[in-house]
Amino acid sequence: MQDPWLLTPGPLTTSMSVKQAMLRDWGSRDSEFIALNRRIRNRLVAIAGANRTHVCVPVQGSGTFAVEATIGTLLPRDGRLLVLVNGAYGTRMVRITQVMGRSVTSIETAENVPVSPSALADALAADPTITHVAVVHCETTSGILNPVSEVAAVCEQAGKPLIIDAMSSFGALPLDAAHVPFTAVVASSNKCLEGAPGFGYAIVRQDALEAARGKAHSLSLDLEDQWRGLESSGQWRFTPPTHVLAAFDRALTEHEDGGGVAGRGARYRRNHQVLVDGMAELGFETLVPRALQAPIIVTFLMPADPRFVFETFYDALRQKGFIIYPGKLTIANSFRIGCIGRLGEAEMRGALAAIRETMAEMGVSSGAPAPSLTPVPTGT
Amino acid sequence: MQDPWLLTPGPLTTSMSVKQAMLRDWGSRDSEFIALNRRIRNRLVAIAGANRTHVCVPVQGSGTFAVEATIGTLLPRDGRLLVLVNGAYGTRMVRITQVMGRSVTSIETAENVPVSPSALADALAADPTITHVAVVHCETTSGILNPVSEVAAVCEQAGKPLIIDAMSSFGALPLDAAHVPFTAVVASSNKCLEGAPGFGYAIVRQDALEAARGKAHSLSLDLEDQWRGLESSGQWRFTPPTHVLAAFDRALTEHEDGGGVAGRGARYRRNHQVLVDGMAELGFETLVPRALQAPIIVTFLMPADPRFVFETFYDALRQKGFIIYPGKLTIANSFRIGCIGRLGEAEMRGALAAIRETMAEMGVSSGAPAPSLTPVPTGT
Repeated sequence: MQDPWLLTPGPLTTSMSVKQAMLRDWGSRDSEFIALNRRIRNRLVAIAGANRTHVCVPVQGSGTFAVEATIGTLLPRDGRLLVLVNGAYGTRMVRITQVMGRSVTSIETAENVPVSPSALADALAADPTITHVAVVHCETTSGILNPVSEVAAVCEQAGKPLIIDAMSSFGALPLDAAHVPFTAVVASSNKCLEGAPGFGYAIVRQDALEAARGKAHSLSLDLEDQWRGLESSGQWRFTPPTHVLAAFDRALTEHEDGGGVAGRGARYRRNHQVLVDGMAELGFETLVPRALQAPIIVTFLMPADPRFVFETFYDALRQKGFIIYPGKLTIANSFRIGCIGRLGEAEMRGALAAIRETMAEMGVSSGAPAPSLTPVPTGT
Repeated sequence: MQDPWLLTPGPLTTSMSVKQAMLRDWGSRDSEFIALNRRIRNRLVAIAGANRTHVCVPVQGSGTFAVEATIGTLLPRDGRLLVLVNGAYGTRMVRITQVMGRSVTSIETAENVPVSPSALADALAADPTITHVAVVHCETTSGILNPVSEVAAVCEQAGKPLIIDAMSSFGALPLDAAHVPFTAVVASSNKCLEGAPGFGYAIVRQDALEAARGKAHSLSLDLEDQWRGLESSGQWRFTPPTHVLAAFDRALTEHEDGGGVAGRGARYRRNHQVLVDGMAELGFETLVPRALQAPIIVTFLMPADPRFVFETFYDALRQKGFIIYPGKLTIANSFRIGCIGRLGEAEMRGALAAIRETMAEMGVSSGAPAPSLTPVPTGT
């Protein structure tokens, strides 16, 4: 029996060969496992085009753990972080910094509006106490793509280290240190690289990491200490998720075999195109204009037809073998469908057929939203 | 080809059926996965005999992440922790607390000496600023068993909450809230319950958790916030290691089917007996007297024969299909062999045969240590 396809922002559908890589037990201090970790770390740095300047430090836990570890390690206790916020993941970085008791401020824009590099430049000029900047590459909240190149250029100009949460884009959208000057990029095992969830990682400038010794708020989440441990013995300080790492090693091979970032991105863009076109035929509208939309996850406005009940829709799709994201957004009445994971055009067309069938069962003739839901046109 | 048997303190050998449970992808917010998590949490509380008073809160990452989360959540910012230390894991709790900037003190005994309940009672009487106590049940450093019942009785008498790190004992050695009054017990997925590594968990008094709201030093490691999230929606706040959780659910079923804590403990005691008897026949001596030894991992003193080179011994055993723990202890020149995981008498006898053969290859006739290595007799 085929498992349901996961049309979510992750955890997502992985290949059977990636899952089968978890059918072995590894001694976490054994040389074979040490070699596997070295291979993973080197490949991740290479994907970011950062071999000469950066190192990769993996961290046990979810992507949020890696984001917290990166902020907690790089932001000095007397530093001040500016977060560009246009969704839940930007907001989470603010909360992470608040909980660890460090100074943080933010510039917020609506969920369907990209963060603004010019507002960032103004804020950095107005508040010289800001020491670091953080931004989300693709905000999974809405699926919007933020202008990280421009943000990075502003940070470089102002001499402020930049932390990029690239959780839902890394490996599918280009993010190259040669063109986007970043201090740290953070991502996880279970998004566009199509591994199983269980760890995150940061690709960090080595000089920034070396300067961060002893700054972290947490032993488990001390990225510098974790890095020093890995460099000195090749071993993780604390038990790593061995099976998940073996799966990820396999996932990286499949990423390479599929054409790397360009190949992965092309498949996801095709998935995205098929989904958005098919949904448009059914009358659905997206929250974010197509030009601002990353090919990762799409937010659709809730149909106006009162016969459209989201829970019924979700359950019927699940019965038909497709799990979409059950959560809702804060500002817009909407739902979300992901286009990432080991899925292609055939699965997206299958999902569209299931949606069409479900709408017929519900007696909903169009997915068109109420006029009031149509988003206000946004500036740039 | 059979993978090497892992005679380590973990990650360890798991059953093929546990690993096969990782061959599915789960939507982390889907109802089926929510039910799986509820089942796991309920079963863990039941193993601790704590249904009426405690709740189970899982945490992404290794066991250390769960220990840090428990200390950081339960110890108030103006609290003071006393750690009973006789090995690396006790020392780690001290360091965890120091890094988070909270007050900590310790009572240290040698690695082959159990922690002392009477010294604890004296310390609590002498220093009324101590608010919490922490102890390791089985110190994986040496394999020594600490008297947690007596420690818990002293804490209860003094009215001090007790945190027990039961990482390497939970599920194999009895630890029942009805007999051992504890505030929190912390363990992980990949030790005696024989799951894959990827998360830890605390079994915590609900009243203590409720009183701890907003105390944590870290968002990712806030046990109270994690618990509130799980209780309100059944969902993890941040992406859980879905495959590892599915494996753990299966591992708990196999634990029950094998007779629960009593059955698991009996198998490990038999493994331990076979190992120690067989090693004694070869001349090896243990660091810890048998009466103080937990049936989890055994520390053997390094043989006196100069032809015994540990790295050669390790590599030869690995070639023969047995991976032992490569690390050494701080105080004694020694090495360690684990007896936990999906192993039985046949595998222990296989390991002994491989050790015998390797010694012959090395030209080592006896495992007897130098007289100076024989541990100093210890008081109680």
